[in-house]
Amino acid sequence: MTAPAELSPTLQLACDLIRRPSVTPVDADCQTQMMNRLGAVGFQLEPMRIEDVDNFWASHGQQDGPVLCFAGHTDVVPTGPVQQWQHEPFDALIDADGMLCGRGAADMKGSLASMVVASERFVRDYPDHRGQVTFLITSDEEGPAHHGTKAVVERLKARQQRLDWCIVGEPSSTSLLGDVVKNGRRGSLGAHLTVRGKQGHVAYPHLARNPIHLAAPALAELAAEHWDQGNAFFPPTSFQISNLNAGTGATNVVPGELTALFNFRFSTESTVEGLQQRVAAILDKHQLDWSIDWALSGLPFLTEPGELLDAVSSSIKAVTGRDTQPSTSGGTSDGRFIATLGTQVVELGPVNATIHQVDERILASDLDLLTEIYYQTLVRLLA
Amino acid sequence: MTAPAELSPTLQLACDLIRRPSVTPVDADCQTQMMNRLGAVGFQLEPMRIEDVDNFWASHGQQDGPVLCFAGHTDVVPTGPVQQWQHEPFDALIDADGMLCGRGAADMKGSLASMVVASERFVRDYPDHRGQVTFLITSDEEGPAHHGTKAVVERLKARQQRLDWCIVGEPSSTSLLGDVVKNGRRGSLGAHLTVRGKQGHVAYPHLARNPIHLAAPALAELAAEHWDQGNAFFPPTSFQISNLNAGTGATNVVPGELTALFNFRFSTESTVEGLQQRVAAILDKHQLDWSIDWALSGLPFLTEPGELLDAVSSSIKAVTGRDTQPSTSGGTSDGRFIATLGTQVVELGPVNATIHQVDERILASDLDLLTEIYYQTLVRLLA
Repeated sequence: MTAPAELSPTLQLACDLIRRPSVTPVDADCQTQMMNRLGAVGFQLEPMRIEDVDNFWASHGQQDGPVLCFAGHTDVVPTGPVQQWQHEPFDALIDADGMLCGRGAADMKGSLASMVVASERFVRDYPDHRGQVTFLITSDEEGPAHHGTKAVVERLKARQQRLDWCIVGEPSSTSLLGDVVKNGRRGSLGAHLTVRGKQGHVAYPHLARNPIHLAAPALAELAAEHWDQGNAFFPPTSFQISNLNAGTGATNVVPGELTALFNFRFSTESTVEGLQQRVAAILDKHQLDWSIDWALSGLPFLTEPGELLDAVSSSIKAVTGRDTQPSTSGGTSDGRFIATLGTQVVELGPVNATIHQVDERILASDLDLLTEIYYQTLVRLLA
Repeated sequence: MTAPAELSPTLQLACDLIRRPSVTPVDADCQTQMMNRLGAVGFQLEPMRIEDVDNFWASHGQQDGPVLCFAGHTDVVPTGPVQQWQHEPFDALIDADGMLCGRGAADMKGSLASMVVASERFVRDYPDHRGQVTFLITSDEEGPAHHGTKAVVERLKARQQRLDWCIVGEPSSTSLLGDVVKNGRRGSLGAHLTVRGKQGHVAYPHLARNPIHLAAPALAELAAEHWDQGNAFFPPTSFQISNLNAGTGATNVVPGELTALFNFRFSTESTVEGLQQRVAAILDKHQLDWSIDWALSGLPFLTEPGELLDAVSSSIKAVTGRDTQPSTSGGTSDGRFIATLGTQVVELGPVNATIHQVDERILASDLDLLTEIYYQTLVRLLA
């Protein structure tokens, strides 16, 4: 184990944040710590507590010029069974293998520490940098997320805050720091489908209309459909039925209706309206008596190669020697909300192999490299 | 209302039986009453209580010659909400329209009374009739039916009881007495199908195998399949899925398996093994990982035109002037057990429009006609 005195500024801050048990939506003063540090180097601070969620916005620089935002969350997911952890989840110790261990080490207090330290160094080295360095931090990304980044973005929109580039600290790396950055996410569109038939007795099927029989060919067609081919940045849109239910439990009754829950993870090659129309067309083709409640969880977003992705990739290459791989795979993130401001969004953070698991950990030295990557990106874009 | 003194012997006995609230498997001494009557005219009586079910066998005649059996049940289904009945369900009154009202009037205490009265008259008129008149009566036809007719038939089989013809008193008529007799029933074959996939996250469908998607085309094919064409006596075999379930309830999880309950009502053109093999072939064709628990509720049986059907039809024609229609439609009955003795089985009883409903009732005068039909059938076959 390494004595605290020997730790880098990034690791010291990361350990301090991890030791605050900020399980969603609790912030446990993580944001106060971050604001103290940023305020001390001249950032303007704007805490935004919305309902039960702590958020803050901070900015440094001038009104003119491009705006870069570091975005992230101080909340962490629950530890799960503590007795299964090798070390106390909120102890934030560095083990014999040089791993920083603790809930939030990867997702994403390590990134938050790197952002703060990189920004401190940047505004000290370039006090008259162009544009603005900003922070958008929430304590509800892992939870319902109604009063977190989404709500802050609404306020920024209302006051026409410019936001050109955003680096989200989500742990994007898969095996080695910087091997992958996320430059987009698929959209998510859910649906609750009801297909109506007519209840009856199995011995008298001519008096009933079996919604299972009626729906089966339509469900088979929906499952076999190719919705799009994806593109250079996205895999093809996928369709999955997660739940399917029909029947009264009795074995001699033809049920009156069938319900199915399904979900699209969709690329930028498809639109919400397009998918809805194509589903409707297939259901109508099979002459079903149907209705659907749709629920849009998030639109897809994509940051095509350009200034931000170039600056991030060049910085990763310079610091680690690695060619980074842009990817749009995986679940949703707060990037989807920020992208609605017309912002180029990239997610860049530590290796995600242990997130949401027991013994969450990252290579401690990766955080110093991450600080350097964030710093060089700032230099490339705003120096 | 008609005063009891004016009632025919059949109606008097029917009312007596209806007033005994013999909800399955309770007999409430209905069988004692029947046995008293039959014993008084020379029938040999053999009560057969099996587990919690009262049954009896009775016979009159000589060992040689053909054997005719009247079969039926003294138990009735529950009344349902009594306050919805126009008259008390166990009062057995005849209303202003001449309807005999009460639980069991149609299903099937009316038939039991007609059988007893017809047999009394027959053995009095033809004391030296050929063959035997017998009764097979149970108090569990509407319930589990494990210890009823099925168990009695096993005993009869064990002692090699000959049984040529059987008239089951089930209410076969649809609008007018004798318009329909049942000369067979479809078989019933149930199944519990499990299709296995691999659970996963909807965002990573390539790591999961969705059993809903895999099963849908197979279910569609099963639902569309023509199993047979039926024949002169049976409609085509029907297939109905009664229950279909898959999913954890969560909208982001691909379920690990799908279950379906389905049922065949099958004609004599299909066999149990044949249907099982064809289902397996369709499931295998779709390369599913599947298993099925089969449950055979009853084999189909058929009584082709011959001595029994001729005698019954001629008696109906003579008494009512109607040409009866043989039919194999509807659910199962105890006839399926008796048919396994190689017996010709016909179901003949009152109009079934109100069975299992509130205000169960039949035209009272139909019971006297039914007694006459049963009597003439006995004369035609055994005089």
